[in-house]
Amino acid sequence: MTSGRVYLVGAGPGDPELLTVKANRLLTEADVILHDGLVGEELLASLPAAALEDVGKRNTDRRTTQEAINERMVELAAAGKRVVRLKGGDPFVFGRGGEEARYLAEHGVPVEIVPGVTSALAVPGVVGIPATDRDHASQVTIVTGHEDPAKDESRVDWGRLAGFDGTIIVLMGVGKLPEYTAALLEAGMEPETPVAMIERGTLPEQLMVRATLATIVEHAREIEPPAITVIGSVVDVTELVEGVLAC
Amino acid sequence: MTSGRVYLVGAGPGDPELLTVKANRLLTEADVILHDGLVGEELLASLPAAALEDVGKRNTDRRTTQEAINERMVELAAAGKRVVRLKGGDPFVFGRGGEEARYLAEHGVPVEIVPGVTSALAVPGVVGIPATDRDHASQVTIVTGHEDPAKDESRVDWGRLAGFDGTIIVLMGVGKLPEYTAALLEAGMEPETPVAMIERGTLPEQLMVRATLATIVEHAREIEPPAITVIGSVVDVTELVEGVLAC
Repeated sequence: MTSGRVYLVGAGPGDPELLTVKANRLLTEADVILHDGLVGEELLASLPAAALEDVGKRNTDRRTTQEAINERMVELAAAGKRVVRLKGGDPFVFGRGGEEARYLAEHGVPVEIVPGVTSALAVPGVVGIPATDRDHASQVTIVTGHEDPAKDESRVDWGRLAGFDGTIIVLMGVGKLPEYTAALLEAGMEPETPVAMIERGTLPEQLMVRATLATIVEHAREIEPPAITVIGSVVDVTELVEGVLAC
Repeated sequence: MTSGRVYLVGAGPGDPELLTVKANRLLTEADVILHDGLVGEELLASLPAAALEDVGKRNTDRRTTQEAINERMVELAAAGKRVVRLKGGDPFVFGRGGEEARYLAEHGVPVEIVPGVTSALAVPGVVGIPATDRDHASQVTIVTGHEDPAKDESRVDWGRLAGFDGTIIVLMGVGKLPEYTAALLEAGMEPETPVAMIERGTLPEQLMVRATLATIVEHAREIEPPAITVIGSVVDVTELVEGVLAC
C-alpha cells in the first residue's frame, strides 16, 4: 500500500454548481488534480492552477495516453500525494473509471470512488426531459454512440434497442448520428419517435434541437460535441414545461 | 405566473456530501422544503427544521397524496414562497419529477430542475461496480423492480432484458426479487450471471451481498429496502478493487 491515495471523482455535466459537496472539498484538499477534457472550463478556472494537470486525451493516441495516466496516478500516490482524478460527468458511466480503479488496485494504491452527476441524465433533466416517467417510460438505457453500428465489433445492439419500450440516451452520439438512427429505423423503430439533442447542457451556451428519429439528422446539423441524444416519448415533456422552465 | 418558484431538487443517494453545491445553496435559501421518505436522515438533520415538511408517501394512499403534494407546491408558490421539492436520488429517475413539473406548468408556476446524483449509478459506484466498462458492458439499463413481472400491466419486459448485453440496475427491487430473477432465468439469462444487492449504499450502515442470478434470492434474505440490484459481469470488478477501496 502506498501512503498516497487516489480519488476518482465525477465533475458533473458542466455547471460548476452541479459538483458534489464532497468533490468540492476533495478538490480544495488535493495535492494534484488530474483532469480530462470534459471537465468544464468555468470549473477548472475556479481550481488552484498549481495543482492542475491536464491529461485529456483529445488529439493523442488513446491507448498510450491511458497508460500514461495510470502510471502518473501510481507515481503520485507512491510519493504520498492526495490525487484527485477528475472526470466529466460520473467516473463510472463511460468514464473508464473501472479500468483506472483496477490498475490502482493492482499497484496497491488506495482508491475512493466519488460519484458525480452524470451528464446522461442531468442534461436531459435541466431542459425538462425526465429519463423515466409513468406516462412515457418505465426504463432507461444509456449507451455510447462512439462505436460505428456498421462495424462488426460494435457491442451496442441497436436492433434490440429499437424494440425497447423505454428511453434511450446516447452519449458521444454526434459523429455517428446518421448511422445509429438509420440502424434503429431499419430495425423497425417508429420514424415519429421524438428525439432531442442537447449540446453543452447545463452551461450558459446550452443548445437543444428537437425532431423525430426520421428527421433529427437533418435538424441537428449545427449540433457539435459534446452533446447528448435522447430518443423516446419523454422528449415531449419538455414542450409541456418549457413555458415555466428556468435553466 | 406566480411570484414564487419551485425547485425540483435531487438529494443524492444518502451521503449528505453527495448533495450538489447547488442543492446545498438552494436548501439554505428555501422558505419551505418538501421532502420525501428517501432523503437521508443525516441530511435532514442538517437542514433548518422550521422549513421542513415531510410529504413522504409511505403507508398512505399514493394517488391522493401525490395530488396533495402537487396542490401544496402550487399553494406555496402562489404565496410567493421559494419551495425546494427535495427527492432522494435524482428527481427524474423514477422520482415522479416529470409529473410534478407538468402539474406546475399547468398552473403557471416557474420551476427549475436541479439534477442529483442518482442512487442507481452511485450506489454501485462507491462499492467499485462501474455501470459501464470496456471489458464488461457497453450499455446500462435502469429499471424499477416495483412492478410484478407476472402482472399483465407490467411495462418492464424482463424477457427482452434477459438478452441484453449490458448492465441491468434495478431500483426498488427487494420485494419482487424472486419474481424478476425467475423471469430473467426463464427467458434464458445465464444462471451464473453475477448479481449484487446493496442496501443503504453510501451510508455508514451500507451492506452488500454478492451472488449469481440463480442464488441471489437465497443469499439476499437479510437485504431490506432501500436497496439497489446490479445484474451483469461488472459486479465482478468490486472483487478486484475491494482490497484498496475506501468507502
